[in-house]
Amino acid sequence: MQRFLSIDDVPDLNLLVDTALALKQDPLKFNQLGKGKTMGLIFLNPSLRTRLSTQKAAINLGISAMVMNMNQEGWQLEFDDGTVMDAGAAEHVKEAAGVISQYCDIIGIRTFAGLKDQELDYKEHVLSQFTAHASVPVISLESATLHPLQSLADLITIEEHKRKSNPKVVLTWAPHPKALPQAVANSFVQWMKAAEVDLVITHPRGYELSKDFSESVAVVPDQNNALRDADFVYAKNWSCFENYGKILTRDPTWMVTKEKMSLTNNGQFMHCLPMRRNVIATDDVIDQSLVLAQANNRTFAAQAVLKTILESI
Amino acid sequence: MQRFLSIDDVPDLNLLVDTALALKQDPLKFNQLGKGKTMGLIFLNPSLRTRLSTQKAAINLGISAMVMNMNQEGWQLEFDDGTVMDAGAAEHVKEAAGVISQYCDIIGIRTFAGLKDQELDYKEHVLSQFTAHASVPVISLESATLHPLQSLADLITIEEHKRKSNPKVVLTWAPHPKALPQAVANSFVQWMKAAEVDLVITHPRGYELSKDFSESVAVVPDQNNALRDADFVYAKNWSCFENYGKILTRDPTWMVTKEKMSLTNNGQFMHCLPMRRNVIATDDVIDQSLVLAQANNRTFAAQAVLKTILESI
Amino acid sequence: MQRFLSIDDVPDLNLLVDTALALKQDPLKFNQLGKGKTMGLIFLNPSLRTRLSTQKAAINLGISAMVMNMNQEGWQLEFDDGTVMDAGAAEHVKEAAGVISQYCDIIGIRTFAGLKDQELDYKEHVLSQFTAHASVPVISLESATLHPLQSLADLITIEEHKRKSNPKVVLTWAPHPKALPQAVANSFVQWMKAAEVDLVITHPRGYELSKDFSESVAVVPDQNNALRDADFVYAKNWSCFENYGKILTRDPTWMVTKEKMSLTNNGQFMHCLPMRRNVIATDDVIDQSLVLAQANNRTFAAQAVLKTILESI
Repeated sequence: MQRFLSIDDVPDLNLLVDTALALKQDPLKFNQLGKGKTMGLIFLNPSLRTRLSTQKAAINLGISAMVMNMNQEGWQLEFDDGTVMDAGAAEHVKEAAGVISQYCDIIGIRTFAGLKDQELDYKEHVLSQFTAHASVPVISLESATLHPLQSLADLITIEEHKRKSNPKVVLTWAPHPKALPQAVANSFVQWMKAAEVDLVITHPRGYELSKDFSESVAVVPDQNNALRDADFVYAKNWSCFENYGKILTRDPTWMVTKEKMSLTNNGQFMHCLPMRRNVIATDDVIDQSLVLAQANNRTFAAQAVLKTILESI
Repeated sequence: MQRFLSIDDVPDLNLLVDTALALKQDPLKFNQLGKGKTMGLIFLNPSLRTRLSTQKAAINLGISAMVMNMNQEGWQLEFDDGTVMDAGAAEHVKEAAGVISQYCDIIGIRTFAGLKDQELDYKEHVLSQFTAHASVPVISLESATLHPLQSLADLITIEEHKRKSNPKVVLTWAPHPKALPQAVANSFVQWMKAAEVDLVITHPRGYELSKDFSESVAVVPDQNNALRDADFVYAKNWSCFENYGKILTRDPTWMVTKEKMSLTNNGQFMHCLPMRRNVIATDDVIDQSLVLAQANNRTFAAQAVLKTILESI
Repeated sequence: MQRFLSIDDVPDLNLLVDTALALKQDPLKFNQLGKGKTMGLIFLNPSLRTRLSTQKAAINLGISAMVMNMNQEGWQLEFDDGTVMDAGAAEHVKEAAGVISQYCDIIGIRTFAGLKDQELDYKEHVLSQFTAHASVPVISLESATLHPLQSLADLITIEEHKRKSNPKVVLTWAPHPKALPQAVANSFVQWMKAAEVDLVITHPRGYELSKDFSESVAVVPDQNNALRDADFVYAKNWSCFENYGKILTRDPTWMVTKEKMSLTNNGQFMHCLPMRRNVIATDDVIDQSLVLAQANNRTFAAQAVLKTILESI
């Protein structure tokens, strides 16, 4: 594996999950593998879980991590080619990615969607430019349209907690006061389609995900119908894809409650965090959920990806 | 020791001081003890000494430290239970503390008093909520009402520099342009009461500390009287406890000067830093003080606490 | 070597360059040298290359690095002696430098010119005060008037890429939308004067560097004339020294283009980065330049300096 920007970079999904689960049993087993190697963790946006779990994964493998908040600590970057850089941006991504590649054996980068220009976000303008000019493997720490480390952790969590083969997994939209990217939802759909699960999506009218992701997935408009017999309920807010970045509704009846969970097959609640309590889901649902298990698996997801990359460089 | 939020968590004070003094003689003696262990240093407020000395203590013990400025680098936290989180806070402390506990073997957290709601601050709302939801030992890096790592360093410094048993230690209020918490003063009083010293407090009328701390301590209203024959003079500003968070006076005659120090028993001046020169005390007083010795002992205070916790987890 | 604030601190320039080149061949050869040692990297201003390359250099030598953004993470510092500190600054550099010295074996500090008070900047008020009160070796990570780690990396790059002895090196001013310090230009001139090169400076009228640096260096007012037969073209913007900190022109005809490079002896383009593309130089010039080679050498410049200092403490 030479990079990890999406599931398409994973040569063997089962092997990656197995690697993560094995590392979870013995996190320090390969703590010499990364000796003398350095990882750069570059953040263009906030992060708690990704920041700490990826650092922890690096530590477990003996990799030295250098963390940098690009906007506050470095220079504002330009991502377009050919620009006359006489405005805010002091450094071009060509130089930034090229330079960081010289100090790091692996680079992780987080860059959120701007939610203003659908085309720019969906061609992953920032991540693509960074990757194009980096000369070492790049790992996505969440990009405009995808969050593969989260999805891998989610898949591991489902593997650990499923009580039958081919469990029913429902991805449900939930309300939120602010406009959020579609990245977690897109990515979750992509990974679930590759996994042995029965995936159903439910969301209010107008919140259709890009067909590139939702194609061939059952979309059930009525949330209650969708939740029926679910083994896993994955809640997440996202803003509109078509009416790009817009909020059409904050309808609180889409919040996941204990009553809604009672429609499921003793279903287990999941969310990527951070989560607004009593907006996305009620306290009682969250307090009996898998959210901490998911967050815990972030370490081993990152560690499996780093180990796999280390072994191929 | 399973946590370090106040002196009440210390099973054997003399042993802890002795541990710190022994580590100071040979800081790297236990540099394998923390191997494979990770510490999270979570800052909700600025920090210089605590940030660097606790990192240094971790390094000395072989612990990997991950530092995070929660507000700038992560998400705004909610600390109240049952809230409908539709305003600023994106993540609840239940998740944040639970998640960080999965990546760290020990967590240090700094959270200052808001100085608006006495009850909230004095029940240590933020720290208590964090600790309640953390599943690993928590160390206070200064909380709303206490700063135990500072007080331990102060006690070590007094032990090193005392010229007689039962020295007279005077805690004197000093002026300051901004409203500051009572944490350092409260904590110092708590630790001095447990030590073999003769403690006296002096402050302008209206600056009484909470009785929970000042009870059984001599309060001498006249600063000059209080300072007479002092072996150690510990200056610190704090805002009102009763008229909570208010500044009643900035009276410059409370500044510690060479003249005032001449009233003492060749007394040694102390302050926790940061300190405003020529406001808290004059240059000549500070330049012959123990402030750097105190700051140096912060490393060994933190190292003693971390070592003691490591040995019990 | 007990500090590294300018070329004046270097006892043997050839030896330092040779050390850097040897480390580049085998970066981890001395990875035990810094064991048990700690370096503080203190930033009062943004940094990408210096931040990451100096950390990387420390890692390569086995030194533990602690990075701190003083203004955002710590306290606002006072640098003047005798001040009554009742305004913004909460901590005096006397305490800050003294305290950090107790946690670190080596301190690196970055502090840019304010560009308001020439005298203050050119006496290196901030760096001098910090160094005066530090009790361990201090390394400049760029100061008000100099950037020696950059200049050392530049010299190494020229040594590696020169195609003849005594190459012609042209330092040319280039336009920029914002007022920048003279530090990189001053420092480059200082180091080139000590190297075996034929140095020429070119800039618009009014952009003369301080005579302390430009003395005995040929200044050719016409850029085209200056560039003729150049082996290396080092572009950099700086604001006025005499009309201190002012921008007199943004004349785009000073931008380095392919046409201008054609006047040179197949000259190689250099810049310290960050660089505004199509303002300082055109894309085609930058894309065939040495800028990434320079940035790469930042690691080995820092590593050579750290190794030399480690061996003398």
